[in-house]
Amino acid sequence: MRTIKLTIEYDGTAYSGWQLQPNGLSIQEVMEGALAKILGTPVRLYSSGRTDAGVHAQGMVAAFSTDRTIPLSAFSDGLNSLLPPDIAVREAAEAAPGFNPRADAAGKHYRYTIFNGARRSPLARLYAWHLRGCLDLDEMRKGAAHFLGEHDFAAFRTSGCAAKTTVRRIDAVTIARDGEIITIDVRGSGFLRNMVRVMVGTLVAVGKGKLSPETVTLLLEGKSSVPAGATAPSHGLCLIEVFY
Amino acid sequence: MRTIKLTIEYDGTAYSGWQLQPNGLSIQEVMEGALAKILGTPVRLYSSGRTDAGVHAQGMVAAFSTDRTIPLSAFSDGLNSLLPPDIAVREAAEAAPGFNPRADAAGKHYRYTIFNGARRSPLARLYAWHLRGCLDLDEMRKGAAHFLGEHDFAAFRTSGCAAKTTVRRIDAVTIARDGEIITIDVRGSGFLRNMVRVMVGTLVAVGKGKLSPETVTLLLEGKSSVPAGATAPSHGLCLIEVFY
Repeated sequence: MRTIKLTIEYDGTAYSGWQLQPNGLSIQEVMEGALAKILGTPVRLYSSGRTDAGVHAQGMVAAFSTDRTIPLSAFSDGLNSLLPPDIAVREAAEAAPGFNPRADAAGKHYRYTIFNGARRSPLARLYAWHLRGCLDLDEMRKGAAHFLGEHDFAAFRTSGCAAKTTVRRIDAVTIARDGEIITIDVRGSGFLRNMVRVMVGTLVAVGKGKLSPETVTLLLEGKSSVPAGATAPSHGLCLIEVFY
Repeated sequence: MRTIKLTIEYDGTAYSGWQLQPNGLSIQEVMEGALAKILGTPVRLYSSGRTDAGVHAQGMVAAFSTDRTIPLSAFSDGLNSLLPPDIAVREAAEAAPGFNPRADAAGKHYRYTIFNGARRSPLARLYAWHLRGCLDLDEMRKGAAHFLGEHDFAAFRTSGCAAKTTVRRIDAVTIARDGEIITIDVRGSGFLRNMVRVMVGTLVAVGKGKLSPETVTLLLEGKSSVPAGATAPSHGLCLIEVFY
């Protein structure tokens, strides 16, 4: 039995998220449908995690098992010829038997993009959160520094998160501005449901002077009298890479 | 009578180009329709030029005349609330009486974007030309240098170009790579129909070793035995700015 590892890029705009669901078209459903055509039999894809409706990915990782001796290119170029324009396989590789994209992941890199202009941008609208007004990036960086290391992120998830433990490790948070575009890159061991988006919403509240940078630590320690910032919208988020 | 200058950004994906036409929805038609709602009367927008179907703009300039004493914000924020998500006014300003966006333009800046990856990119698909294989950027820069200055660009236009003279001045051509993304920035006095796209197609032929950099000069002098490169696809092109 072979295990094939796929690295997948998608524009999440048109989908109800990665994971199969009864109401709405998921990326997993489209991928499994295309794979079944190549394999000639239904197949189950196991991913490194789910992404919510509207979230994009440059490097989602998923795997499946097969005993067919089809060449690897069938699972990259072959699959791409069957997939719609907004989903593509970037790489297909043989993985060790028993490879588990979720359990074996050592970490992930997410990027959140903000369009910080006075008026809405048609060219950035699908991939960036439009935020007007001044954002103090130095204050945001001070707030971001409090995330580094291992913490209990219970205050940085949304309802529906079924994780057994809420302790996660953040390795880096980098905030950069290029004209009207602000990018927030977050690398860590793993993420709770909506965790990156709540982290971004909180950093934005810090950047607007509504929360102090130190509030981040109070939130992580469960000592804050105010809640975390609002969940940033999904379309600004992109899963860049999963580390193994 | 007031003359109002609008700077307009649009995602050209869904449109048949800037200019009004019987078959297909143009950006001009959508803009004039929204403006008419604000002014309460039909209005004609005069632009700095047309863009073809699928071409994008960050800074298209257009102007109209009105004797209504409506505040300027009605032509920026007010207009934006009526426009679809893929078209927006970036700026509205009072212009000198008789301002003519086309005749008064001193120059334009276009950017062409190439996605130079082995497999197609869902996230770059709407705004970049997907080109596989090696591109020699140094050779392309040598070719680009031949464009600088005033030349007869008759070989770098496509049929349907009705310009009386084909002499144009190119001030700068900058080619840069950032990972799999290559950008070609072209600044000049003015451009013939499809001129930037034929210039890009020719530079790509140079980058692939199919044409020598010196062929650019032969083409400009009308001495080339081979034609210019193929017209690069429209969706990679964006009108960045019009200079006055």
